Amino acid sequence: MEDLYVFKIGGRTIDDTCELESFLSAFAVLPGKKILVHGGGIFADDLARKLGIPIQMHEGRRITSLAMRDLVSMVYGGLINKQIVAKLQKLGCDALGLTGADGGLLTAVKRPSEPIDFGMVGDIQSVRRDLLLDFLCKGLTPVIAPLSLDANGEILNSNADGVACALAAAFSESYRTHLLYCFDKPGVLLDANNPDSILSELNPAAYERMKQEKLLKDGILPKLESCFKAQAQGCYRVLLSTPDQSLRFLKGQTYRGTLIQA
Amino acid sequence: MEDLYVFKIGGRTIDDTCELESFLSAFAVLPGKKILVHGGGIFADDLARKLGIPIQMHEGRRITSLAMRDLVSMVYGGLINKQIVAKLQKLGCDALGLTGADGGLLTAVKRPSEPIDFGMVGDIQSVRRDLLLDFLCKGLTPVIAPLSLDANGEILNSNADGVACALAAAFSESYRTHLLYCFDKPGVLLDANNPDSILSELNPAAYERMKQEKLLKDGILPKLESCFKAQAQGCYRVLLSTPDQSLRFLKGQTYRGTLIQA
Repeated sequence: MEDLYVFKIGGRTIDDTCELESFLSAFAVLPGKKILVHGGGIFADDLARKLGIPIQMHEGRRITSLAMRDLVSMVYGGLINKQIVAKLQKLGCDALGLTGADGGLLTAVKRPSEPIDFGMVGDIQSVRRDLLLDFLCKGLTPVIAPLSLDANGEILNSNADGVACALAAAFSESYRTHLLYCFDKPGVLLDANNPDSILSELNPAAYERMKQEKLLKDGILPKLESCFKAQAQGCYRVLLSTPDQSLRFLKGQTYRGTLIQA
Repeated sequence: MEDLYVFKIGGRTIDDTCELESFLSAFAVLPGKKILVHGGGIFADDLARKLGIPIQMHEGRRITSLAMRDLVSMVYGGLINKQIVAKLQKLGCDALGLTGADGGLLTAVKRPSEPIDFGMVGDIQSVRRDLLLDFLCKGLTPVIAPLSLDANGEILNSNADGVACALAAAFSESYRTHLLYCFDKPGVLLDANNPDSILSELNPAAYERMKQEKLLKDGILPKLESCFKAQAQGCYRVLLSTPDQSLRFLKGQTYRGTLIQA
């Protein structure tokens, strides 16, 4: 079975031009089929402040008003997505920038307004595999902004982790899928201030136990749950680490990170 | 030879939600292969004013600073493009939103800085036909924002008329290509205040004569030149009219517009 690498980047990798360029240079030359999902970064918040659009968060997740939905369409779908595509094209990687609206790639359902009304936020329901498979077979590298489409033709803001999870799960029938969840930490840490407290492996049973014992920080829980969901749906393995360490991992070099593998 | 319809919309069609929806409803059900190129509209200028980014024009063409380039990437590539795609998807038209950076579709050369430095503005040099042909053959309708990519991996702002012209010319080998240049007027008018002064047909010889006699307004000249360029490169016919009249023309109904045909 051929390998497929689904990378999710966000945070500092998007905000810091040097980090982004360094990651993209390595990503561009990674052989084989690959998909890049990117999050937002701080630019969307900066722009919202300049335009007087209120920034509302609930437990680290964005509440998306109509104005904020248009803003993230612009920033994620227009600015960041095309900047990444342009850089990859220059590096010789045949990148194609997409949102979930394009070709109806990502269908979502608006999150129920109870208990928290997240506004124009959608949870991914389905992935249009045929079209993405076709792009991959042509040697294109889809670069995907976390925007989705609901049945009413509304663009919704979707969590980039959830998008990466849905993509990895959707392609696990066709490929041996590796999901690389890149963030600013080298993995799941038991103590945020101690890099040595990293969990090198995690499985659902250990996760449930640690969650009950409150050994894991709240912020990591939704991320881990989407990792286990991808794994349950056939994803070969998931690594949570920095972009740099994730690339080391794929090359078979020594690395730091939290591996989730059956 | 199969027909291909290349529509270019801009101005009021983008700015007025009702006009846009009305056009898209008719465009969505137009049978056959089609490409939609869209311009910017007034939203980019509104946003620039809010953000304190200077708006500079020279003879109706935008001078594009780096900040303005990022702004048009957001507005054209993210907001307008995805709004159109979402509406078309809802209408059952399998739209795929793209910029010239995606898949390296539109290669451009930065316009020389003499006699006028237009900044990050590019003139289209080549179209990646294979990829667009493949999209068309899959039943996808490319929706293209007027952004291009230069050899240094820089995104450039390109004139939407020029993009439509380059696309129509590029596909004239493979299709009988109809270029529909939609704008706010029902065609080329000899007297801007008199709708009855419309030229129903125009050819290069008549154009040159009228240009020398100063019968044509400056604003229409670059538009007409790109029409003749498309025609010289094999485009079957070009119509300059409103979106509404252009659709009437394609359906074989009575219409108003300026037709350029060999």
